[in-house]
Amino acid sequence: MGPASERTRVRRHPERADYDRQAALAVLDEALVCHLGLVDGGVPYVIPTMYARQGDVLYVHGSPASRMLRTAASGLEVCLTVTLVDGLVLARAAFSHSTNYRAVGVLGRAVEVTDPEEKMAAFEALVEHVCRGRWADARRPEPKELNATKVLRLDLTEMSTKVRAGGPRDQEADLGLPVWAGVIPLRVLRGAAIPDGAAADLTTPAYVFEYSRPGWS
Amino acid sequence: MGPASERTRVRRHPERADYDRQAALAVLDEALVCHLGLVDGGVPYVIPTMYARQGDVLYVHGSPASRMLRTAASGLEVCLTVTLVDGLVLARAAFSHSTNYRAVGVLGRAVEVTDPEEKMAAFEALVEHVCRGRWADARRPEPKELNATKVLRLDLTEMSTKVRAGGPRDQEADLGLPVWAGVIPLRVLRGAAIPDGAAADLTTPAYVFEYSRPGWS
Repeated sequence: MGPASERTRVRRHPERADYDRQAALAVLDEALVCHLGLVDGGVPYVIPTMYARQGDVLYVHGSPASRMLRTAASGLEVCLTVTLVDGLVLARAAFSHSTNYRAVGVLGRAVEVTDPEEKMAAFEALVEHVCRGRWADARRPEPKELNATKVLRLDLTEMSTKVRAGGPRDQEADLGLPVWAGVIPLRVLRGAAIPDGAAADLTTPAYVFEYSRPGWS
Repeated sequence: MGPASERTRVRRHPERADYDRQAALAVLDEALVCHLGLVDGGVPYVIPTMYARQGDVLYVHGSPASRMLRTAASGLEVCLTVTLVDGLVLARAAFSHSTNYRAVGVLGRAVEVTDPEEKMAAFEALVEHVCRGRWADARRPEPKELNATKVLRLDLTEMSTKVRAGGPRDQEADLGLPVWAGVIPLRVLRGAAIPDGAAADLTTPAYVFEYSRPGWS
């Protein structure tokens, strides 16, 4: 398990590259949180944080990385990885146990968004990534709020996808063993919404009580 | 969101440190996948991979990192981060939207496990982390299988936990807005197990049809 440990290469078959790209975008849109990797003083750090996709660009809530960003005017070299766990693969052999998952790794330089219009659009994307339909209802950010938060932009140019799906792949010799084998599917389930304070007296919006994400069935 | 971006410090209150440690271990035991960050040629990489805890040690399926490990006899400097997403926090203000989560970051040098007994114990921990009770049923690894896989050990000495829980924290001035606010809880749900081939004729083990993880209610 794990994306390529080398920088992604251009594939030879453009139709395959396009398919891979669509699969990668689907993963980025379904997942909630990314793991942002960066180097500081030669030490790797991996920070879970919010992100959102807008076309061919990812926006990342930049506060966790802002300290490092200050020292890198040309942008901060990052690896942003997003992983969805789809199931557990129980093979007959202990050695062949695995996980079904979809993972996307994006390499590149994250740069700070300074243009106020782009920053506002990034905020909208971040809120809509958490909950589609929410931006129209929530109070919009004020200039001082925009200034108080850093947002980073990462272009989706260098991206790799890795997927494991399907049942166990036991060796031929193990198939006859009297050991149960198969997949336990896993998915994310939303619970009943918990209103905050006076919101209990307001109508619960459909985007809350029917909360769903791209890729959820 | 995101663990401290500086190396963890020793806390002043030992009882608080112990509480934090227990909370961190609970996160490590509940989650399935970690994100392993490492540096190669100055570039950060973040790899999703399997892991398991055994006392004060984490074992990591080392194949993804083995190329880098070969160049580091003293071990590979890593940041291993594990994140559980518990819910979505919808505030009245767009700016205050957030995620409830529990995240643990472990810094240290991952070293290759070469002792055959420890490696077998690490394999057991990895299989049991995926599914408690499974090791007793699955065919044990043979020496050639043990040799074919790298396992890394990472001591739980430098560890930080970050947790966000509870409802939205809107500013006082926003509390009167007629905007629904609250939390949408999220959790992982197991689906019905899918037997592989002839396993359909075998009794499904309780650890499959009652599959659960530490921390699941």
